[in-house]
Amino acid sequence: MHFFIDSKELTEGVLSVIKALPVRTTMPILEGIYMEATQEGVKLKCSDLMLQKECIIPATVEEPGNVVVPGKLFSEIVRKLPDSIAEITLNGKSIDINCGRAKSSLQCVETNEEFPDMRFNGETFLVKIDHNDCRDMINQTVFATAQDDSKPILTGVLLELGENITIVATDAYQFAMRTMPLKAPVSERDVVIPGKSMSEISRMMDETEEDVELTFTKTHVCVNIKHSRLVARLLDGDYIKYKQILPKEHKTRAMIDKKELMESIDRAQLMAREGNNNIVMKFHNNKLTISANSFAGRINEEMDVQINGDDIDIAFNPRFCMNILKCIPDDHIYMDFTTSISPCVIRPAKSDGFYYLIVPVRIYSNF
Amino acid sequence: MHFFIDSKELTEGVLSVIKALPVRTTMPILEGIYMEATQEGVKLKCSDLMLQKECIIPATVEEPGNVVVPGKLFSEIVRKLPDSIAEITLNGKSIDINCGRAKSSLQCVETNEEFPDMRFNGETFLVKIDHNDCRDMINQTVFATAQDDSKPILTGVLLELGENITIVATDAYQFAMRTMPLKAPVSERDVVIPGKSMSEISRMMDETEEDVELTFTKTHVCVNIKHSRLVARLLDGDYIKYKQILPKEHKTRAMIDKKELMESIDRAQLMAREGNNNIVMKFHNNKLTISANSFAGRINEEMDVQINGDDIDIAFNPRFCMNILKCIPDDHIYMDFTTSISPCVIRPAKSDGFYYLIVPVRIYSNF
Repeated sequence: MHFFIDSKELTEGVLSVIKALPVRTTMPILEGIYMEATQEGVKLKCSDLMLQKECIIPATVEEPGNVVVPGKLFSEIVRKLPDSIAEITLNGKSIDINCGRAKSSLQCVETNEEFPDMRFNGETFLVKIDHNDCRDMINQTVFATAQDDSKPILTGVLLELGENITIVATDAYQFAMRTMPLKAPVSERDVVIPGKSMSEISRMMDETEEDVELTFTKTHVCVNIKHSRLVARLLDGDYIKYKQILPKEHKTRAMIDKKELMESIDRAQLMAREGNNNIVMKFHNNKLTISANSFAGRINEEMDVQINGDDIDIAFNPRFCMNILKCIPDDHIYMDFTTSISPCVIRPAKSDGFYYLIVPVRIYSNF
Repeated sequence: MHFFIDSKELTEGVLSVIKALPVRTTMPILEGIYMEATQEGVKLKCSDLMLQKECIIPATVEEPGNVVVPGKLFSEIVRKLPDSIAEITLNGKSIDINCGRAKSSLQCVETNEEFPDMRFNGETFLVKIDHNDCRDMINQTVFATAQDDSKPILTGVLLELGENITIVATDAYQFAMRTMPLKAPVSERDVVIPGKSMSEISRMMDETEEDVELTFTKTHVCVNIKHSRLVARLLDGDYIKYKQILPKEHKTRAMIDKKELMESIDRAQLMAREGNNNIVMKFHNNKLTISANSFAGRINEEMDVQINGDDIDIAFNPRFCMNILKCIPDDHIYMDFTTSISPCVIRPAKSDGFYYLIVPVRIYSNF
């Protein structure tokens, strides 16, 4: 293997594929970047078996071949190369990288394993979406996925496709749903994509200014942007029947200034953190008071809100509230309550297609 | 105690004094900020017993008094207050902070101890210096202080005062010295200031555009800038007799492009890190080659330099080289060598008043 490649383009490619490098793995070969020189250019690939990222970089290939290089070290060295043409040569069990004054030689990853490849084949199903909408919808939901594996399906994000695209994520404490009409409706289908892969799809959206296509098979999803390609395995199994848990009605609706609310929660959580990590929200007579108590002291915030329905006292984990409020573009939000132990719905006052739920915590003491 | 204070000015003051809050302490009172309301304003103070920072903030004081508030929590709350006038009231064993919609109440720090005060008295000795020169000279030396306590005096920085100001720091592996004439010469005197206090003095230089005065007593140094005041204890004991270890001559002098050298060391240290953390520098025929080897591979960098004297092979810890090179403003540097096991002098090719030493590591293998 022997080729010449622009060091800047190589760096961009490496930084893109190493997003799929596993943090921990028992398979040494996955700590590497698979590199293949062909007449089309140089292909790079990383995989953690759930997510695979590839790219093709233009190169002058003198001799084709392939090799697996240590991912972390190779990426660090490539990033610091002078801005010039790098000559890369496979030399026995090591790879020589010559670029201007910098000459290095790296031991390749040697194993008996073949570098895994995610086959993307079978009947495909295509969804077209604006790249900004795709990025925003993912970022406005993916935070709510479960971070532990006790219910594996909840570590993924549900995509409901049809007339609309609906993205749902929940960890059973917080619930996020975004909906948007599809410019080109598709036949109905549900898929569950791992949260980590979803975040990487969101990041890829910055690499283009055009509509993107998500291509699905029964088991995988694939996104191609310019010379980059992402393939992710879908999660097996059915997503929870979430529609049953969405409240059908509410007894109290409050309209609240989002900025004021975020500032108050931001301060109250400083005190909540010293104690049981809860903030208490009391809605009475068009006033909202937010309070948090701990051995270190208490904090109290008051603001004018518009309340329709019964007065209510309710307590939340402030982090969950902030996660949701950060996603809402509007200046004002609605919070809809039924009782102080049932989920609260949070929605923007104007924008359509946003729906958040948050489960309250019980108020034990008489604050 | 009861006063009204601008929340922004309070925040600035708190962020300034908490620089002296100890990271770890066995004295609970030192985790607090001492706050005193007098007719002159509100005084804040933190101390770790070696370094004390104070400031006075204008305030409308209704009732004087003093209290110790929990440093970390108070600073976090104050930082997030709305931009307005805060009303602060001592209320039994807690302190009430009311600022716009935000109302909080913090338990004060209760101990039988008095908040310590560093007395700054006795005969004083004054040094006047430009604030930029003061900041730069500190930053260009303080990195070389010892980070462990095996030789406590080396955790400090030596100031030699007289016609010039000379700042010296060394941890026995690297040595840094900066000298500059004083606009107003003083009588000769040596003092040793702890590295941490010296760094804080450097940071304070950004708060002014004028010359600053360092005021010394036999045991302390004091810096006043606007409403802020720093008092630091000097280190007891004599600094090492460093002049004896400075090389009297050299057998090789190399003139090197600083940017090229830094780029090459930066790359070479990636490979050095995987191995014994050394880089080898070979000076032959007006060429410098820098190499690093490890089980993971090797890296080799070549550049044109100007060599006067004998060829030489020598090895260094790349981090020490980078620390020094970052401090030098010039485009070119001199490296002066005697043997491959004696200290190397590094100096800017043009600027005066910079002198760095670095101790080589032995080359064991035949790279």
